[in-house]
Amino acid sequence: MPPKKNEGSKKKPAVSEGDHEEITVAEILSKTIVGVILLALLYQFYVYIQVSIVAVPALPKFDLNVWWGPNNTKVQDSSIRPYRIVLSDSMQENLRRKFEAYRRATRIKSLNETSEYGINSEVLGQIFAHWQFKYNYREQSKYLNKYSHFKTNVQGLDIHFMRVTPQPTTENVKVLPLLLLHGWPSSVRDFYDIIPLLTTPRSGHDFVFEVIAPSLPGFTYSQGAVRPGLTTYQMAIIIRNLMEKIGVKQFFIHGEDIGSTIGSHIATIFPKQVLGFHTNTPVNLSKLAQLTLFFGAIFPTYTAGDLADKIYPLNDKFNYFLEEFGYLHLQSTKPDTLGIALQDSPLGLGAYIIEKYLLFTNPNNKINQDGGLSTFDKSALIDNVLMYWSTASITTSLRLYKESINNYDTEESLARIPTIVPTWGLRTKYDVIQQPDFILRWKYPNLIGITNLDVGGHYATFEKPNEVADDIFKAVKHFLTKTK
Amino acid sequence: MPPKKNEGSKKKPAVSEGDHEEITVAEILSKTIVGVILLALLYQFYVYIQVSIVAVPALPKFDLNVWWGPNNTKVQDSSIRPYRIVLSDSMQENLRRKFEAYRRATRIKSLNETSEYGINSEVLGQIFAHWQFKYNYREQSKYLNKYSHFKTNVQGLDIHFMRVTPQPTTENVKVLPLLLLHGWPSSVRDFYDIIPLLTTPRSGHDFVFEVIAPSLPGFTYSQGAVRPGLTTYQMAIIIRNLMEKIGVKQFFIHGEDIGSTIGSHIATIFPKQVLGFHTNTPVNLSKLAQLTLFFGAIFPTYTAGDLADKIYPLNDKFNYFLEEFGYLHLQSTKPDTLGIALQDSPLGLGAYIIEKYLLFTNPNNKINQDGGLSTFDKSALIDNVLMYWSTASITTSLRLYKESINNYDTEESLARIPTIVPTWGLRTKYDVIQQPDFILRWKYPNLIGITNLDVGGHYATFEKPNEVADDIFKAVKHFLTKTK
Repeated sequence: MPPKKNEGSKKKPAVSEGDHEEITVAEILSKTIVGVILLALLYQFYVYIQVSIVAVPALPKFDLNVWWGPNNTKVQDSSIRPYRIVLSDSMQENLRRKFEAYRRATRIKSLNETSEYGINSEVLGQIFAHWQFKYNYREQSKYLNKYSHFKTNVQGLDIHFMRVTPQPTTENVKVLPLLLLHGWPSSVRDFYDIIPLLTTPRSGHDFVFEVIAPSLPGFTYSQGAVRPGLTTYQMAIIIRNLMEKIGVKQFFIHGEDIGSTIGSHIATIFPKQVLGFHTNTPVNLSKLAQLTLFFGAIFPTYTAGDLADKIYPLNDKFNYFLEEFGYLHLQSTKPDTLGIALQDSPLGLGAYIIEKYLLFTNPNNKINQDGGLSTFDKSALIDNVLMYWSTASITTSLRLYKESINNYDTEESLARIPTIVPTWGLRTKYDVIQQPDFILRWKYPNLIGITNLDVGGHYATFEKPNEVADDIFKAVKHFLTKTK
Repeated sequence: MPPKKNEGSKKKPAVSEGDHEEITVAEILSKTIVGVILLALLYQFYVYIQVSIVAVPALPKFDLNVWWGPNNTKVQDSSIRPYRIVLSDSMQENLRRKFEAYRRATRIKSLNETSEYGINSEVLGQIFAHWQFKYNYREQSKYLNKYSHFKTNVQGLDIHFMRVTPQPTTENVKVLPLLLLHGWPSSVRDFYDIIPLLTTPRSGHDFVFEVIAPSLPGFTYSQGAVRPGLTTYQMAIIIRNLMEKIGVKQFFIHGEDIGSTIGSHIATIFPKQVLGFHTNTPVNLSKLAQLTLFFGAIFPTYTAGDLADKIYPLNDKFNYFLEEFGYLHLQSTKPDTLGIALQDSPLGLGAYIIEKYLLFTNPNNKINQDGGLSTFDKSALIDNVLMYWSTASITTSLRLYKESINNYDTEESLARIPTIVPTWGLRTKYDVIQQPDFILRWKYPNLIGITNLDVGGHYATFEKPNEVADDIFKAVKHFLTKTK
């Protein structure tokens, strides 16, 4: 301790080899206090970064039997009932009447030939004309029933699913269960073209798939919850319980859009039941991933490698999100208000849903005069719209966005907890969110491979079934080799 | 210049009165370069702040005759035609059929008793029941025609307006023209209760108003543009030209919501024609105002005074905006897509519009079981919805948000250019955006007064006509004293 000298201490001239001052106790104290405060603040910041961003939290304990249906029906119903999709005469008659009224009503012409103000009126006119004059309800409903549909009650909700067993195979071809999970505003309709590809044995592969494709709770044929809280990880639990109920203990998963988030949650919460996870929306939704991409903007090529020009410049990407994610903003805050109009107007619903398919398949469709419509089978797009329309389920599907915001903390925690499940990502050319491999590995340390497709967009399972089926076979072949 | 010494220069021990070193030319050069670069950067930053945020730009030169209608009708039509609001039998019949279909359709029940997921189903049920069973089309259309309506063509668009002359007055009561400007999703319906208060002479005031209330272009009875670009300052020009056309050279303005923005633009672009500007949405929309409020969060009471708890904490306010401004986000990006459903579903449109009135009148209405509906005259709310419905104009009204974003730079420039017009602000208790006086004065240096009302919300002209009328009389009395 330096000698006390409260009085008469004068600064001596500093000499070359360093300052030498006499210091008072008060000075020591004040410096110590400042130091301690700074250290405490630094520690606080460190703790915040650790706890809120970096640390891997423990897996929350989930109640696997939350009841989402009305309380007065709290009876376990063990039946698994066959189901048929019906496009009823009365619904068709109702649509005809609505279309008549729409034809007589004032229709708004777009201000230019692009879809910059929303779906172009010419594109909408083509959809309307097809729906009104060319869409064949009888044929399409026959087509929609080509696979076996079922309903069964899980946690109080009637859950719809398709189950498609493969063609009879020779002895040395294994049948592997594959859970297909659709997103928003999609439905099981997205899987109609890929299912035959997955259920048909192919040379060079000693396995084939049995497909189970449920409708998410609140989406089309599956009932929605009667109380708040049915967010993605609760859907993951419902889907896993559905698989238990139909006797499939272990399975592979392929997911897209929200279906990928739900598949990822199943892989995280029930890793022993998931043999492999394939996704064509490979993203890590943790804060750490977002912050890394944000600060990575300083060295884009270092951060993102070949993906640099799909992720950066940040400003362009930010503007793109601002421009395209208005629907997400409204659905996350006022789903019920928006739903009233969408559920009452078939064309309004069609425009709202089909716009997403057009814009997220290829951003250039926004400035194309035809909006990209010609690259799609219009009847297929309308099938999907009709699935929401005939079940009056758009509002319950929109609510998922609100639930995700309401339960953001847990959703984000789950995004930080790595899963040991073997994973394979399929990156399409035009997908909305793209992330480099090293960020995906934080969530999926067992990332067996990534395929970079130079075609396709966000709804690739629907748009590019051949490419996606090929990739699923490839991924599962790798999964099986690894686990042997 | 210090002597050159490239070789053998050694640092001497520093002495007490200051360092004394020998310095090489290279060191001088490098320090100079760094200094110059730093100065240049600082200057750049200063220029950026000056030019983009602080400086008052010159008033842009506007073409006052932009043609917004179809090119093939480019003929000046000088007529001013009387107009009658008609709620036609065929429209009523169409609504009855739509309501029938709606009654038979699956309706979605809210997950709880609040409006947290959007408008509550019980509240919507009440609106629907009133519209279907109690709303009297005959009586209401008689009521809507109680004032004189006109249409006239301005810049290619048929513009609707009401013109209400005061009761005959004694000689010493002057009649002052007052332009009333509505906002979104409002219409001239908002002014029905305040008009008699403004056109009736009152004791202690030697003036009374003649009211001119136009429908904004693209809103209800006024035609929308056929090409992009009709943003708020272009509307300001159209409204000013309308006033010219009907022979009113100088006038007072009262504006609300977007109508206030447009009124402010008229006062900025045509200051000599505006005798005084009264607004119950007193805001400065410049970047400087927003940045000041942002950094002012460090000293909230110093920045905002009595308004501190309405503006801060910033985090709460930000979350509130995030929660409530989803509609704004979607309308600013995809107005046409959203419009298709709203224009096809009367209930959807009603819910979308009335929700704004409920939530922006009092934020607590969100958690009230009745949503605040009982504080409104339901028929009046439905009148307003019907004005949009019967004119199929919701889409063209939504487009204004897109145009505002597309023309943000000029809009922001105008927000920075002060107007000499005498101004008076009315701050209601629950208005969405609140700003302290000193920030308002940047835009309105001639701010004669501010009234702080302890009732009312964003649509005060409709909700609190007595208080607003009192304030307009008070403000104009001050304006007149000042200009004497």
